[in-house]
Amino acid sequence: MKLKIKNLNWLAGRPVAILNDKTAKKMNVFANDRVAITNSKKVYAIVDIFPKVIRKNQIGLSKELSDVLELKDRSYVKVSTSELSDATFLIKKKMQGKQLTKEELYYLISEIVHNNLTEAEIAYFTAAEKLNGMSVKEMINLTKAMVKTGAKLKFGGKYTADKHCIGGIAGNRTTPIVVAICAAAGLVIPKTSSRAITSASGTADVIETISKVELSIEDLKSTVQKTGACLAWGGSLGLAPSDDKIIRVERLLNLDIEPQLIASIISKKVAAGSKYILIDIPYGKGAKISTLEKAKKLGIKFQEVSRSFKLKIKVVCTKGSEPIGNGFGPTLEMLDILLVLQNSPNLPDDLKEKSLFLSAELLKLCNIKNARKKAEDILASGKAYEKFKEIINAQNGKKDFNKRINSLQLARHKKIIRAKRNGKITEISNEGINSLCRVLGTPETVSSGTYLHKHVGKIKKGESILTLYTESRTKMKEALKFLKEFKPIKIR
Amino acid sequence: MKLKIKNLNWLAGRPVAILNDKTAKKMNVFANDRVAITNSKKVYAIVDIFPKVIRKNQIGLSKELSDVLELKDRSYVKVSTSELSDATFLIKKKMQGKQLTKEELYYLISEIVHNNLTEAEIAYFTAAEKLNGMSVKEMINLTKAMVKTGAKLKFGGKYTADKHCIGGIAGNRTTPIVVAICAAAGLVIPKTSSRAITSASGTADVIETISKVELSIEDLKSTVQKTGACLAWGGSLGLAPSDDKIIRVERLLNLDIEPQLIASIISKKVAAGSKYILIDIPYGKGAKISTLEKAKKLGIKFQEVSRSFKLKIKVVCTKGSEPIGNGFGPTLEMLDILLVLQNSPNLPDDLKEKSLFLSAELLKLCNIKNARKKAEDILASGKAYEKFKEIINAQNGKKDFNKRINSLQLARHKKIIRAKRNGKITEISNEGINSLCRVLGTPETVSSGTYLHKHVGKIKKGESILTLYTESRTKMKEALKFLKEFKPIKIR
Repeated sequence: MKLKIKNLNWLAGRPVAILNDKTAKKMNVFANDRVAITNSKKVYAIVDIFPKVIRKNQIGLSKELSDVLELKDRSYVKVSTSELSDATFLIKKKMQGKQLTKEELYYLISEIVHNNLTEAEIAYFTAAEKLNGMSVKEMINLTKAMVKTGAKLKFGGKYTADKHCIGGIAGNRTTPIVVAICAAAGLVIPKTSSRAITSASGTADVIETISKVELSIEDLKSTVQKTGACLAWGGSLGLAPSDDKIIRVERLLNLDIEPQLIASIISKKVAAGSKYILIDIPYGKGAKISTLEKAKKLGIKFQEVSRSFKLKIKVVCTKGSEPIGNGFGPTLEMLDILLVLQNSPNLPDDLKEKSLFLSAELLKLCNIKNARKKAEDILASGKAYEKFKEIINAQNGKKDFNKRINSLQLARHKKIIRAKRNGKITEISNEGINSLCRVLGTPETVSSGTYLHKHVGKIKKGESILTLYTESRTKMKEALKFLKEFKPIKIR
Repeated sequence: MKLKIKNLNWLAGRPVAILNDKTAKKMNVFANDRVAITNSKKVYAIVDIFPKVIRKNQIGLSKELSDVLELKDRSYVKVSTSELSDATFLIKKKMQGKQLTKEELYYLISEIVHNNLTEAEIAYFTAAEKLNGMSVKEMINLTKAMVKTGAKLKFGGKYTADKHCIGGIAGNRTTPIVVAICAAAGLVIPKTSSRAITSASGTADVIETISKVELSIEDLKSTVQKTGACLAWGGSLGLAPSDDKIIRVERLLNLDIEPQLIASIISKKVAAGSKYILIDIPYGKGAKISTLEKAKKLGIKFQEVSRSFKLKIKVVCTKGSEPIGNGFGPTLEMLDILLVLQNSPNLPDDLKEKSLFLSAELLKLCNIKNARKKAEDILASGKAYEKFKEIINAQNGKKDFNKRINSLQLARHKKIIRAKRNGKITEISNEGINSLCRVLGTPETVSSGTYLHKHVGKIKKGESILTLYTESRTKMKEALKFLKEFKPIKIR
């Protein structure tokens, strides 16, 4: 059936074709059915029925569809009913426990990139990955497909390096410090990070408190060329774009799907042009990986997959049973980072130590001698801080770093929680601290969050345990209720 | 955040909340994220961003949401970000291979009924069902939950009975004949059927060529009370409504998920008030179930689950390696049914025989003696035809059966395909015949389809193999191309 196009500036989160109820009846399609739109290419879309906006014999396109089809209003396209994308057969094959070939994985991933699969289909694919597993060969081909279907960067320096933590630990904002130290030591680090998914904030949220993070590929390149590094948000760059679409679906259930985790990390690094990669796998109670043994096993898989891409990779398994740093929430974490970079007397020791450890490991991987000493010197001498300023200024295109950090502000309402008696903090839950911050308003309200005065260890009656920051009285009440009910900090 | 409601008469196929881009930015939600809308109840919705339709601080509701929330335009609701439905934890639990309890399955299914889960989440649930399996206890509790969350019928007769085929065979339109025979023998059969999913037509599509099929619960009851039976479409009745939503997701990949298949069939029968149930499981090459052994295994599971509902159930495993009947497509299948009911000399023998077999089995199950003879007599005497007329007239609320069947028409364009040489038809593919009909325009174009002159067996040069019917020249060309390429009928 030929229908007349109406481009709607409408973000539906998936490719949606809007039909009039009469047209839908004529075509025998229902809301949520799939149609194929054929022009020079064939694109699949999900049907919505919305007579108010769309007349008979018209087809309204959501922005996702308009962007792919690039057709003018009032031009005609052929629209036919309920055909399946061939990729659905591949998903079914994986559901049946069979292996997918290189070509099949490439086709499947490119269909995801072109929005030709629904979230439900992506859910079936990832469920099959999780429950039926993937061979190393499949993981390699999956990673290749994810790289090939997106943009790719290349940098000239001798050592293009990156670090990546698989996540799960509250705070743990080492990235900006490691990037600053290693770039000051001469490495090239085109670092891209994500926003918060379930945590109090992501690296991109933290950097955004003082900097632009949504860079174009050109801005990113020029920042790296000028300063040796960048601290950008990965979401807008089109590096391994299938990953973003798959993560959207996985996060519905907060699933950790191992083949996807590995492919996701390696593909982003390869696409960004990095060759020397440090992977941090925290383990322990309350971390994503519960034991050292499991962390090591995962590490071996990272090694096996990365071999195909000629990466030099080092995996470190670190203790992850409690939060790292004192501040949790975008602004509070930025303040922690600044304290470490400024060698301030009240800096969070654990964050400094972990940042130095990771920096030294990454420098070692890039054949730099006396790596630990070098990292310490760069941090202590203020060179890391200088490099950080340079990166932020380059990324913003303005030399206003000092102005930006001086205008950092914490939320209006604050409340200090003190120990009611002498005792010992036995446990601080990563998930509990993240949820507490979410209740207080992070990551949306960048000034909100939690400051942890004490880590695991002894505490005296009357001493501060933590301070809560929020812009809303209601949220403060909810946070106090949350503390009482869920006890993210256990004191004995 | 409080937002002002705007009800949009818009079928999105899922609960969608439309936001202005500014509101979305303020709330830090993106297209396809989830929000919770809290009023007297809490409902989850997927975010679309559509500034053209929705102003700042407004929230547009898709019809699915308006129907659940029942709030007036311009009233305010609280909208908050990205919370997970508790049901997602249950899906995760099933993904981890654990069993779900009765209460958990009830909660999960009721969340599906209330549109609080996305299709991707339903996909994860069904993937976990397929890959991790379900115990008999889980299947029973799943079925109970599916019944409990919908409407329920009850009829007074001594024997309220039903028959169900798990599908997969082209044609095979025994239902209307079995219903007519058994109702004429005194059984009560509140029969509900589906429309075509992947086949040339569903029973509801076939009945619709001469009758209304979208009945209200009241119309259905009165038809059954008057005539002892009905032949309604199951989709609009609200019997086990979760099933329709789950099937929508499964059919994306044409998955057969055993626990869901069993729960789906049993729950619909229990909800319709049937106690005596005949299940037909066709097996063989090209059927859903490949061997008799597998068919029997599935039959045992049906028995185990139905025991909990005090159903008297009989499972028959029938040969399903080739299509049954001569006509394929809504009108052509109706003509087949009429030939059998009218005892016409050129009736399709296989359809008559299978209908008699199933009728006799169902009568036997209801303790009727000499069941086979009784079924034959009812058919031969014209009583079954009279009963069929009665049911259709009652369902239409008009005594115009003859007028309706006289106005049945086949498509304008027809083409006979003849044998090019003497030989033997060795195979007729169920899937091939269904796809051929789809190419010709079924089920949308009820007059289109295929007439099969010969079944498996000898054929002479020049004899007709099949006739193609369509309303469109283009479709005829495509059908001829399809025949050539896919050879649904193998001749040796």
